[in-house]
Amino acid sequence: MAELSMQDHKRPFKDYAARNFRWECSDDGRVATITLNRPEKKNPLTFDSYAELRDLFRDLAYANDVRAVVIQGAGGNFCSGGDVFEIIEPLTKMSMPELLAFTRMTGDLVKAMRRAPQPIIAAIDGICAGAGAMVALASDFRLGTAEAKTAYLFTRVGLAGADMGACGLLPRVVGQGKATDLLMTGRAMGADEALACGFFSAVHAPAELLGKAQALAQTLADGPWFAHTMTKTMLNQEWAMGIEEMIESEAQAQAICMVTGDFTRAFEAFAAKQKPKFEGC
Amino acid sequence: MAELSMQDHKRPFKDYAARNFRWECSDDGRVATITLNRPEKKNPLTFDSYAELRDLFRDLAYANDVRAVVIQGAGGNFCSGGDVFEIIEPLTKMSMPELLAFTRMTGDLVKAMRRAPQPIIAAIDGICAGAGAMVALASDFRLGTAEAKTAYLFTRVGLAGADMGACGLLPRVVGQGKATDLLMTGRAMGADEALACGFFSAVHAPAELLGKAQALAQTLADGPWFAHTMTKTMLNQEWAMGIEEMIESEAQAQAICMVTGDFTRAFEAFAAKQKPKFEGC
Amino acid sequence: MAELSMQDHKRPFKDYAARNFRWECSDDGRVATITLNRPEKKNPLTFDSYAELRDLFRDLAYANDVRAVVIQGAGGNFCSGGDVFEIIEPLTKMSMPELLAFTRMTGDLVKAMRRAPQPIIAAIDGICAGAGAMVALASDFRLGTAEAKTAYLFTRVGLAGADMGACGLLPRVVGQGKATDLLMTGRAMGADEALACGFFSAVHAPAELLGKAQALAQTLADGPWFAHTMTKTMLNQEWAMGIEEMIESEAQAQAICMVTGDFTRAFEAFAAKQKPKFEGC
Repeated sequence: MAELSMQDHKRPFKDYAARNFRWECSDDGRVATITLNRPEKKNPLTFDSYAELRDLFRDLAYANDVRAVVIQGAGGNFCSGGDVFEIIEPLTKMSMPELLAFTRMTGDLVKAMRRAPQPIIAAIDGICAGAGAMVALASDFRLGTAEAKTAYLFTRVGLAGADMGACGLLPRVVGQGKATDLLMTGRAMGADEALACGFFSAVHAPAELLGKAQALAQTLADGPWFAHTMTKTMLNQEWAMGIEEMIESEAQAQAICMVTGDFTRAFEAFAAKQKPKFEGC
Repeated sequence: MAELSMQDHKRPFKDYAARNFRWECSDDGRVATITLNRPEKKNPLTFDSYAELRDLFRDLAYANDVRAVVIQGAGGNFCSGGDVFEIIEPLTKMSMPELLAFTRMTGDLVKAMRRAPQPIIAAIDGICAGAGAMVALASDFRLGTAEAKTAYLFTRVGLAGADMGACGLLPRVVGQGKATDLLMTGRAMGADEALACGFFSAVHAPAELLGKAQALAQTLADGPWFAHTMTKTMLNQEWAMGIEEMIESEAQAQAICMVTGDFTRAFEAFAAKQKPKFEGC
Repeated sequence: MAELSMQDHKRPFKDYAARNFRWECSDDGRVATITLNRPEKKNPLTFDSYAELRDLFRDLAYANDVRAVVIQGAGGNFCSGGDVFEIIEPLTKMSMPELLAFTRMTGDLVKAMRRAPQPIIAAIDGICAGAGAMVALASDFRLGTAEAKTAYLFTRVGLAGADMGACGLLPRVVGQGKATDLLMTGRAMGADEALACGFFSAVHAPAELLGKAQALAQTLADGPWFAHTMTKTMLNQEWAMGIEEMIESEAQAQAICMVTGDFTRAFEAFAAKQKPKFEGC
């Protein structure tokens, strides 16, 4: 009787048939690109696209192919957030349990993005607003263009800046003072400011943005991928730990990585004065 | 028999008679301005002004009028910290229980500022030192001038940088490295540095500083005020939470905001292509 | 019979005989300088130097002389990290318990540096890589040169960025976004970027770097040293606390500092219009 392998529970995502956005994979299947694709409305999110993104990022934990994800918007904008008539209007008529089900669903998208083992790279051109700005914030890397305008504009629709984890996540990225400013005023942050405060890690020309994001994704996918997933796990895991606990946690995490083949491959390549060829496990 | 309303416990603060600083309100009562007012000594704090500020910020939780607070100093300086002869000399003669009562009182001012529902905007010109720099840090926004010099100079009087929460609060605003530097050396930080590291959110000309601070306060006061108070609450509340807990907390917090009138008002104004008129509830 | 004094357990470190690096002290014994000293290999760490550094920083808690530590590398580089043939090769052949003993030892160096009461100043020229970059991060101050290149390049050897606490420590210094970027890509960070993001607190000419680091160390050593040790303790201690707990902790910590002689000395000097002469207790 054949042993059951964990691998049996893994599946390919290259041919995932997306319903609410575009989904494309590189030839080797390692880099997936999600394109929010309602450019005439600046790519708003809807109940359906929220739910599908949440489910997709949850399922990517079981992918046997996809190792990095790029997320972008079509037509020169990233994402305008929750659609006014498709989301905000229905919310104004819901009961509290329904509202909480909605805010938990949107929060679950952020949880799923943080828990997904794949590094996620947001490629941000034009408008990046509301829930769109939270998708950017939940990503591991944010690459922008000079035209990018990021706004946590929940306050503009009468809501709190406390949406999908913003009051906890944003201060760690841009500092507590700037986060307070952005969340309370809802103002747009331009590309220069986003780069200076560490929200963007780079700014590229619009025509080059997707290529740069995909190239970074491919580099990560072709690197010591298992180790990258551990880096992401620990960046999440140590969020609220004390110093002693962080260090013990990493002692264990890194010891795990030291028994991977990629660690041996790296040493052997170095000893042979070659570049290591990582296999991701 | 009339029902008891929470509103019965609310009271106006427009005519609050301050004893140890100036207190002025905008005509609509929504924006209060505190002016530390001993300009000949650069507006030091005393036992009495600490205690009155602490009590005032605690009581502002029950205000039915004030929705935002500006804090400034008179005569071109913000605040020089604890007065040498009125505070430091008596402290050198106190018993441990008395000392602890003092450090808890000053810490309670920071707690009260963080717990006050109103956004607090520090308008910082000239000297901003010691406990004055902590009042600035405990505020939600810090606007400065080119002349502003901020110094956590506790070390200059032989004390630790650990004062009123500085070792916990400052690293989240300016980063752990710069906070260590500022707290251990006690050096002054100029306006350019304060802006670059996110301590200041803007720098204005001295003649315009108060007006800019009050205009920001008025904008926040006239916005979705209940939602702003929730933003402030959650920025405090999620300080030491893990990622999962932050996101569930915000799902609940935002669901609360979705049953406010301001959320409906915002949608209706948008649908009518008008600017929303928020009522703050 | 003589009373046992805590002081009896203190001992001088001026004449510490280092085996795996250079150890030099200022004439007054207050400032120690550690020089990683294998310049031909860019000062890599070995099992022996890790262990000796860990033990030394642990023991410095009992020093009666050394009050500040400078750490630098010889020959124009700071530290190239774990040596490939002396550390990485043996690791590829170890059992899991041996690996965990190693990762715990390296983590214990960071713990010991954070727990040492002395402010630690890293003087960083040239290469600052891997475990070397962690030694820099575990320091209280980082001074660099224009030639400094800092790289968290664990990923280059197939490992996670989760090494010695990097995933918890680095985000607090440079922000969560830049930390993710540095840890996942392993790229080198130049001096301008390190200064702008708060990793370096200053950049000096190579010829002046050590002098500047030692001068800062001497200033701290000659200041209210007991209070400085409390600042460092609280910066560690409040890492994962909520706001209320931070403030109560500092009320206690600062009350302790208010019964030191240095606090009285500072007041008396001020009253006499003199500069205080601190004794460090």
